[in-house]
Amino acid sequence: MEARNSWRFVLLLALVLLLTWLHLPSLPNSKFHSRWYIPKNTFYSSSPTYHHLESETPQHPLDPLTIQEFNRVRTILSSHPLFKSSSSYTLNSVVLEEPDKKLVLKWKKGDPPLPRKASVVAVVKRVSHVLTVDLEIGHVTSHETGLVSGYPMVTERDLYGVGEATLRCPEFNNSLAKRGLNLDDLVCLSLSSGGYEKLEEEENRRLMKVQCFSKEGTVNFYMKPIEGFTALVDIDSKEVLAVSDDGKNIPVANASNTDYRYSIQKLRGEMRLLNPISLEQPKGPSFSVDGHMVKWANWEFHLRPDPRAGIIISQVKVRDPDTSMLRNVMYKGFVSELFVPYMDPTEDWYFRTYIDAGEYGLQSMPLNPLNDCPRNAYYMDGVFASYDGTPYLQPNMICIFESYAGDIAWRHAEATVASLNVSEARPKVTLVVRMAAILENYDYIMDWEFQTDGLIRAKVGLSGILMVKGTTYENMDQVNLKRQETAPGESPRKSYLKAVRKVAKTEKDAQIRLQLYEPYEFHVVNPLKKTKVGNPVGYKLVPGATAGSLLDPEDLPQKRAAFTNNQIWVTPYNKSEQWAGGLLAYQSKGDDTLQVWSNRDRGIENKDIVLWYTIGFHHIPCQEDYPIMPTVSSSFDLKPVNFFERNPILAVPPNFEEDLPASKAHDSA
Amino acid sequence: MEARNSWRFVLLLALVLLLTWLHLPSLPNSKFHSRWYIPKNTFYSSSPTYHHLESETPQHPLDPLTIQEFNRVRTILSSHPLFKSSSSYTLNSVVLEEPDKKLVLKWKKGDPPLPRKASVVAVVKRVSHVLTVDLEIGHVTSHETGLVSGYPMVTERDLYGVGEATLRCPEFNNSLAKRGLNLDDLVCLSLSSGGYEKLEEEENRRLMKVQCFSKEGTVNFYMKPIEGFTALVDIDSKEVLAVSDDGKNIPVANASNTDYRYSIQKLRGEMRLLNPISLEQPKGPSFSVDGHMVKWANWEFHLRPDPRAGIIISQVKVRDPDTSMLRNVMYKGFVSELFVPYMDPTEDWYFRTYIDAGEYGLQSMPLNPLNDCPRNAYYMDGVFASYDGTPYLQPNMICIFESYAGDIAWRHAEATVASLNVSEARPKVTLVVRMAAILENYDYIMDWEFQTDGLIRAKVGLSGILMVKGTTYENMDQVNLKRQETAPGESPRKSYLKAVRKVAKTEKDAQIRLQLYEPYEFHVVNPLKKTKVGNPVGYKLVPGATAGSLLDPEDLPQKRAAFTNNQIWVTPYNKSEQWAGGLLAYQSKGDDTLQVWSNRDRGIENKDIVLWYTIGFHHIPCQEDYPIMPTVSSSFDLKPVNFFERNPILAVPPNFEEDLPASKAHDSA
Repeated sequence: MEARNSWRFVLLLALVLLLTWLHLPSLPNSKFHSRWYIPKNTFYSSSPTYHHLESETPQHPLDPLTIQEFNRVRTILSSHPLFKSSSSYTLNSVVLEEPDKKLVLKWKKGDPPLPRKASVVAVVKRVSHVLTVDLEIGHVTSHETGLVSGYPMVTERDLYGVGEATLRCPEFNNSLAKRGLNLDDLVCLSLSSGGYEKLEEEENRRLMKVQCFSKEGTVNFYMKPIEGFTALVDIDSKEVLAVSDDGKNIPVANASNTDYRYSIQKLRGEMRLLNPISLEQPKGPSFSVDGHMVKWANWEFHLRPDPRAGIIISQVKVRDPDTSMLRNVMYKGFVSELFVPYMDPTEDWYFRTYIDAGEYGLQSMPLNPLNDCPRNAYYMDGVFASYDGTPYLQPNMICIFESYAGDIAWRHAEATVASLNVSEARPKVTLVVRMAAILENYDYIMDWEFQTDGLIRAKVGLSGILMVKGTTYENMDQVNLKRQETAPGESPRKSYLKAVRKVAKTEKDAQIRLQLYEPYEFHVVNPLKKTKVGNPVGYKLVPGATAGSLLDPEDLPQKRAAFTNNQIWVTPYNKSEQWAGGLLAYQSKGDDTLQVWSNRDRGIENKDIVLWYTIGFHHIPCQEDYPIMPTVSSSFDLKPVNFFERNPILAVPPNFEEDLPASKAHDSA
Repeated sequence: MEARNSWRFVLLLALVLLLTWLHLPSLPNSKFHSRWYIPKNTFYSSSPTYHHLESETPQHPLDPLTIQEFNRVRTILSSHPLFKSSSSYTLNSVVLEEPDKKLVLKWKKGDPPLPRKASVVAVVKRVSHVLTVDLEIGHVTSHETGLVSGYPMVTERDLYGVGEATLRCPEFNNSLAKRGLNLDDLVCLSLSSGGYEKLEEEENRRLMKVQCFSKEGTVNFYMKPIEGFTALVDIDSKEVLAVSDDGKNIPVANASNTDYRYSIQKLRGEMRLLNPISLEQPKGPSFSVDGHMVKWANWEFHLRPDPRAGIIISQVKVRDPDTSMLRNVMYKGFVSELFVPYMDPTEDWYFRTYIDAGEYGLQSMPLNPLNDCPRNAYYMDGVFASYDGTPYLQPNMICIFESYAGDIAWRHAEATVASLNVSEARPKVTLVVRMAAILENYDYIMDWEFQTDGLIRAKVGLSGILMVKGTTYENMDQVNLKRQETAPGESPRKSYLKAVRKVAKTEKDAQIRLQLYEPYEFHVVNPLKKTKVGNPVGYKLVPGATAGSLLDPEDLPQKRAAFTNNQIWVTPYNKSEQWAGGLLAYQSKGDDTLQVWSNRDRGIENKDIVLWYTIGFHHIPCQEDYPIMPTVSSSFDLKPVNFFERNPILAVPPNFEEDLPASKAHDSA
């Protein structure tokens, strides 16, 4: 019998995007007709550039740590007792410790730099430590441990070390040999164990599960899992604690039609559907990037790569056309956590409840120029610390580009009084900031999109490869998701999601009332600041399509990912409450999460607040997702509501033929 | 006191898009690796072209009536007793009567043309008549009247006639004079009366309400309403039945800052935020338009302008990469109805419950080249009949273009095994078919978007101008929509929507659970046809953000627009059930609507079915919408689910530098 790769499970994917709001400022009283122009480009290239990063110095209090600063952190830590006395430790996270918000808000270009600090999370002798390193005075100024459960993100060394240890394990190798598998063909993935507290092995040690795949005949080894066969490994001691082999020896799928590379497709005959199409800007782009400051049209913000959140956007400001002043919109915005519980309660699958940002970090490979981003894109590199604190470069991690899809920013034609001869329309051009986080098989495309009318869209796209399960054949029909309880002892998971079938048999069966009959709008306003007409200034959150988690609230992964219990949360600003699944999410007990903070029920009225929004996807795979998934997206918007006195893009000109590129679109038609 | 234009009301907008499904065909057994190429362009121009429409003959059974055919309909009708004996009639709708679906499906290019028929809806002596004119045999072959309540769409002559009659009415003019208004400054709009059956005047006569505006100092007269002052007019007799003047004489707002035209903005100082940006295709576009057949990439469909639906898309087919055969996806798709109840129960506003397609038709002015559509667009004209059947041209009514926003069709980079050196991504290019329907102040941008991966997106954008109400000042704060009952006798409307205020005071207040915890997927499958793996082939409906109507179900406009009671409906295919609010929607009693048909509870399993989806917007205006609204959009997707054997765009090549235009993007940077 040949094993079929069919898909019995449902993937629930929930991201929370954290947005910190400022008290929205008032409109200045002075009103004058002023205009502004496209900023001068200080950096721009159509092909990736590598800066002289070694000599880089921070230009802004929120700039990420520089190579020099990473090296200084290493030097300072090497003389700290915690690290001096231990021959084995990992620095799981070394990032900028942001100065206090009020200092950052006060700081202006030209001011003396604010003191620089690094926040370090390390594992030493199986224990998590959180330290602050003051780069000015050259000392560790804060050191905490044992306050909350859990461990930091794993390092690359953790992942590789676990894989190597597994392949050296005789029991593991015997099982492989019994299945007739060749070690050289294998790829073994180190998977977060999910942190099920009832498993005794998980107490006080960092664990990983290992599953292997065959890369024989394809780069798409995800399609060739060695099923029913996992190892449990201690990350720190590299000890293989258990090898689980269900003995079913489900054969590995064959490699045919799994490779997605162009080089392979070309051999089989490529499918050229389209003539080339490109976004062209004959006068160059309309944005500038100066260090980490981005200026475009009426927007200005600080942008930095982050090893956990991917992209952090700060001090987002928009220019008011009435006063030509920049106004604060959002202090900080980033993806706080990402929860991916696979919906399969069996031994080899129940633990797959990834909390990706906190367990692995939203890491990126270099973006593919011309294909991940259009030709008019600018690329920004990331500099991060490896497990021992050595800095390394993540090139082309973020791209920034202007997007024009042919859409309309606003329009009206006057049909009622045709003699007025009115037909006005303005093209919609946006600025996109993008990264693509790769979490093994899955690719998450994260976009922050800015519109000239003041709207900010946060969009998440899913692509990449499904994690398939070798199983006996089962196909799908119309589906109806609902929670499925497991029988006692059946699985460590209390509940899961199962696609069950419901066929609409009559017209009335198909009269389905979506549960959207309690319409709300969610506004963030500053009641102390009003427009001239007297409306409090604000922004509203416009949710997009989303999905809730159907896990049992008592399941430990759900406790950790309790941010998925609501789509919207609001908390008072607290600099330390940043990671919805906890700073130390790995195997945590859920004692340091958004749910825990929010349960304190603190006041939020007339406070500096944090808005949390959860985007969700239920992904029920289908054949079109094989061998690589077409992108599926969801988004939400932050839209100005009585923030401006009127439509802020009323005065922008339309497109004129003479402004567009000289090459005619149809010169070969 | 100066009147302020503030916005007390909420607009609910619901569209229903009707999609007729075919039994999805099986995959042919033969499998061969075949490829196809970009179709030859038979028509293309970067600037609008006017065809030699006079001599046009139909090339496809679904092609719209030609100029010659319209003239023939007029000739045939002129000898019909109904029209011969009446000196006064209006032809409210003259369109193609589609041949039976089975005949259309059988027809192939080169076959003899199917018999051509016209469907005519006329009002003769206050009575609605529905006729079929057979163009072959030159006779009226069907004539129905009195089966259902209601009247057809109004004609331009109706609208102007009502306006003229009002301005001749002494009582109306006296009221205007008392307000000190100059007739030459006025624009009077003929507004559908809403068809409230309790108003005795509405029995057996077509009525309109008239409201006037001052265009003094601006083309944006919508911002200068003459408030508290309407007339009720008999459309057919042109009699002014009532003039309502609340005597409050709220002053007309001044014109400052209301004009949105570029010519005016330029005088005040334009705001040039961006360098030009353009979609360029150095080798020309990848689509062809042959008559009304559109071919692009792996898609093929028939496209025709319609005076009521705007755009009708038919016989949508996608090419299967495994077999290179075209496969049916959708027989017909169009906007069936559009319901716009303003949420204000007062005398001058309660009746504003527009059912826009059925009352006015989704009519378009010519699209604005370079601004409504990008430069690479092709434009299609519409030919329609005026009130006496004379054909007229609606130039540049629909545009077709390829869109590239810089998005990603699919991607994966292999980070787990870096030595594999895999980084594959494909740019996402789509085909957009667009029109912009203008319904007095409001502009609806209707897009049908096709993706190469088999997905179809139907998108509606809202722009244009708010219908404002002159009122004493009231500003807005955080809002919470809910149904508000009117007191008995307070208003002809039983319920409306009121924005009331709710401030979240604590963190728990802000833990808001969106009602999306019953996740469903909505699939249309053909259980008789399976993929090779054995899954029934199908498409799923992926809803976007939407909104439900909060009107009382016993309110007559809500009965007529009962399609808003559900987001999704499925009915068995019935050629005559096309218009969700009834064929004769104007002042109808709601006796011929989707709700009525669906209540018959016919079987839909293993039937040729029709899927209806309602998109909804709650539009609570804000200052940014003034004086012209930035576009707000919503959409839904039709996504292939086990329709293809695998990702259908696996073999498409990535972008290569040498394929893109020669002009570098940063040559002036």
